Amino acid sequence: MASRHIVAVGGSDAGISAALRIRELDPATAVTVVVADAYPNFSICGIPYFVSGEVTHWTNLAHRTAADLAATGMHVLTDTRATRINVDAHTLDVLGPDRTPDQLAYDALIVGTGAVSARPPITGLSGPDALGPEHGVHLLHSMGDTFAVMDSLQQRNPATAVIIGAGYIGLEMAEALTMRGVAVTQIEALPEVLPTVDPELGALVHAELERHGVEVLTNTAVTAIKRTDNGALTVAAQYDGAPLTRTVDFVLVVVGVRPDTELATDAGAELGVKGAIAVDDTMRTNLTDVFAAGDCVHTHHRMVGLTWLPLGTTAHKQGRVAGENAIGGRARFAGSLGTQVVKVFDLVAARTGLREHEALAAQRGWQPVSTTATPDDHKAYYPGATPIHIRITGDDTTGTLLGAQLIGHRSAEVSKRVDTYAAALFHHMTVDALSELDLSYTPPLGSPWDATQMAAQAWVREHQLAQRQENFAG
Amino acid sequence: MASRHIVAVGGSDAGISAALRIRELDPATAVTVVVADAYPNFSICGIPYFVSGEVTHWTNLAHRTAADLAATGMHVLTDTRATRINVDAHTLDVLGPDRTPDQLAYDALIVGTGAVSARPPITGLSGPDALGPEHGVHLLHSMGDTFAVMDSLQQRNPATAVIIGAGYIGLEMAEALTMRGVAVTQIEALPEVLPTVDPELGALVHAELERHGVEVLTNTAVTAIKRTDNGALTVAAQYDGAPLTRTVDFVLVVVGVRPDTELATDAGAELGVKGAIAVDDTMRTNLTDVFAAGDCVHTHHRMVGLTWLPLGTTAHKQGRVAGENAIGGRARFAGSLGTQVVKVFDLVAARTGLREHEALAAQRGWQPVSTTATPDDHKAYYPGATPIHIRITGDDTTGTLLGAQLIGHRSAEVSKRVDTYAAALFHHMTVDALSELDLSYTPPLGSPWDATQMAAQAWVREHQLAQRQENFAG
Repeated sequence: MASRHIVAVGGSDAGISAALRIRELDPATAVTVVVADAYPNFSICGIPYFVSGEVTHWTNLAHRTAADLAATGMHVLTDTRATRINVDAHTLDVLGPDRTPDQLAYDALIVGTGAVSARPPITGLSGPDALGPEHGVHLLHSMGDTFAVMDSLQQRNPATAVIIGAGYIGLEMAEALTMRGVAVTQIEALPEVLPTVDPELGALVHAELERHGVEVLTNTAVTAIKRTDNGALTVAAQYDGAPLTRTVDFVLVVVGVRPDTELATDAGAELGVKGAIAVDDTMRTNLTDVFAAGDCVHTHHRMVGLTWLPLGTTAHKQGRVAGENAIGGRARFAGSLGTQVVKVFDLVAARTGLREHEALAAQRGWQPVSTTATPDDHKAYYPGATPIHIRITGDDTTGTLLGAQLIGHRSAEVSKRVDTYAAALFHHMTVDALSELDLSYTPPLGSPWDATQMAAQAWVREHQLAQRQENFAG
Repeated sequence: MASRHIVAVGGSDAGISAALRIRELDPATAVTVVVADAYPNFSICGIPYFVSGEVTHWTNLAHRTAADLAATGMHVLTDTRATRINVDAHTLDVLGPDRTPDQLAYDALIVGTGAVSARPPITGLSGPDALGPEHGVHLLHSMGDTFAVMDSLQQRNPATAVIIGAGYIGLEMAEALTMRGVAVTQIEALPEVLPTVDPELGALVHAELERHGVEVLTNTAVTAIKRTDNGALTVAAQYDGAPLTRTVDFVLVVVGVRPDTELATDAGAELGVKGAIAVDDTMRTNLTDVFAAGDCVHTHHRMVGLTWLPLGTTAHKQGRVAGENAIGGRARFAGSLGTQVVKVFDLVAARTGLREHEALAAQRGWQPVSTTATPDDHKAYYPGATPIHIRITGDDTTGTLLGAQLIGHRSAEVSKRVDTYAAALFHHMTVDALSELDLSYTPPLGSPWDATQMAAQAWVREHQLAQRQENFAG
């Protein structure tokens, strides 16, 4: 029997995870990874730390080197664009580095084409005269984008910058540019920065940005970017109906991404939520022997069903499942909880599960109610204790935990404390039952009831205690 | 109907937790807490940080002040010794501060008498001429012990010390005395320090102690402590059959604790594992309306059944259950997993669940096998990444997670990473399923597969991959 051949399209988290999993489970299966650029298995999430200078060389951003990948036995075709999936023929058309067409036969194909930067409807960003990297106006999602940004920073040596968008990458880039000595203005159309958490928590990140000299403009919609006569850039926006402008040396547009589905849809793939490729929890598309994983597919969420939530952690998990199933396995993606974390200067903000409006939108009958508590990360008597702002959302009817949002100092182990809530959500725990978990304690690092449990107890006190007290009234 | 009156004996974690829970659930119930010394609700775990000087005043070690406790409506009787439980009469005999006998009537009683220091069979530690605090020889478990230690340190101003025992408190005291400029020799009878983790991990703590100038003598049994003519102390020990002595200015004996059960046994309480008071998972003793909780009771362990595992976290949980049930509730202690953590200089060591020999001793049919991995705490390209030594133990037959031990730098969020394993153990997860958890990731704080998951994957690769590969062989 001839060896199987699996082809993965995309050299980022999903494609490489799939290829690694296949090579691990069956070293006899041949695997080819088709990578459009020259940077397989690079950490997109690490880009801001290269821009900041904390990562000293771009090659360090590779999760694995080309040699590491070769050592697994997978074949990586760089600078190779997949142009067409021939589903019936089980072949993939590609254009190689020299633009020569070629065709790869496959037994199963895994599409991991990822996402591309969203380009907001701002005058100056589209059309034949659109401003771009050569003018100091940048999107930022790929290594190619990164090199363009670094060239711009070196050549223009900007003193000032506008960052449009205050999500994860926008906030990280505000820190990165500030570390490089650039005066940053961060503009967000929504009422508060980091819109993935409730505004009362986003306000803490807002204050942290300002504490480090970033000008933060929220509720502010950018309408146009124009080049001035001397090559500077004027960003025009509306705040509360009034015009507002900033003229700067550098503009970064980071307002999100959209799934890159062209290859799959051209072959007849059905799309799901938010125009992402529809897959089941085995990562199968509707196309025979074609799997898809990562930012290009919609996301099975353990609590709300189908959504679209592009995250590297999820792409790794989905890629692993797709790889296993591409060689006949029976793996299932257990689903996302939307667990996320970001460091912004000295603060860490994390979330898992649902916020109130998301729980309501899920239409599962939940009555979401929330409580914010500010327990210390460790015993106050030991030096360095800091409060963590923890906002718990639970179902008022059943007491089920629905979500948690945490913001605290980077020393407060926030990123691994959110994991406790993520594990609790995975197992459908009630907020009250969190107090049954046997969590670790030593005074320099925790409390006899961990901060995660103290916050849970605060929720229970606010929403359930009065009813429980009735059972005990003498 | 007259108000209920609940009496708790003991002002440490269990007794105060019980009292707090009662006051929370039924403000109409009267609660009296009988405390033998003057220090209710003090953090015993914090003592080393007062000795080190990191806690600037002993009063800071109180979890709550007397005023905080009074504000809850509980009555705290300090310097009051409980001398007899009259089970049939539902009364407690006490001796007040002035040694006047008194009697308290109760509807339910909660015994939280805790533990007392074990006194090892070392010549010079017992008998009429036993050395004690006045000679610079100390046990350390209570606030009274703490004041004696501080007096000794001030009056003797020791340049050198021997610490007998290298468990949690011994290690923390080695750090504390080192911080005070005392040259410490730490003596442990077992083959490695921190015997609650596997020796290969304990060796890392051993090295950390030495890196900070502590002389560490393992496999070394102390036989005698003698006073020299000039008031110094000679500690005599045996190492591998050969005698060994150290003459120092100060000796600390911290070889563990035993449950303080005298009050309960005098009243007819049955004892359970390791001579601790027998209770069911509602924290009831065999005595009518007498509950017990904390270090004085045996411990329901979720994996091995009954054991004895005195920990502050457990005492808080058990006290809370006892309090609720003392007023007619139906709470159950969900059980311990033995989750523990200790900071030793710049290292943090944590464990949860079972080690191999503990899993075997449980006689549940497990075939425990372990794998140690050393994933970085966060992406290596971001500054400050350090490896965490993670040793996973799982059942070779079913793949069920049995336990995890972690040692890493104090920056590596080890104490909250062990909590992920604790949550997984609580829910009986397999090692493989850990990879399904949606844990948080950002390059400065984690990896797309968290270190906890990379270690789990290493276990699966070592113990299950070959078998799984057979399913995929072409």
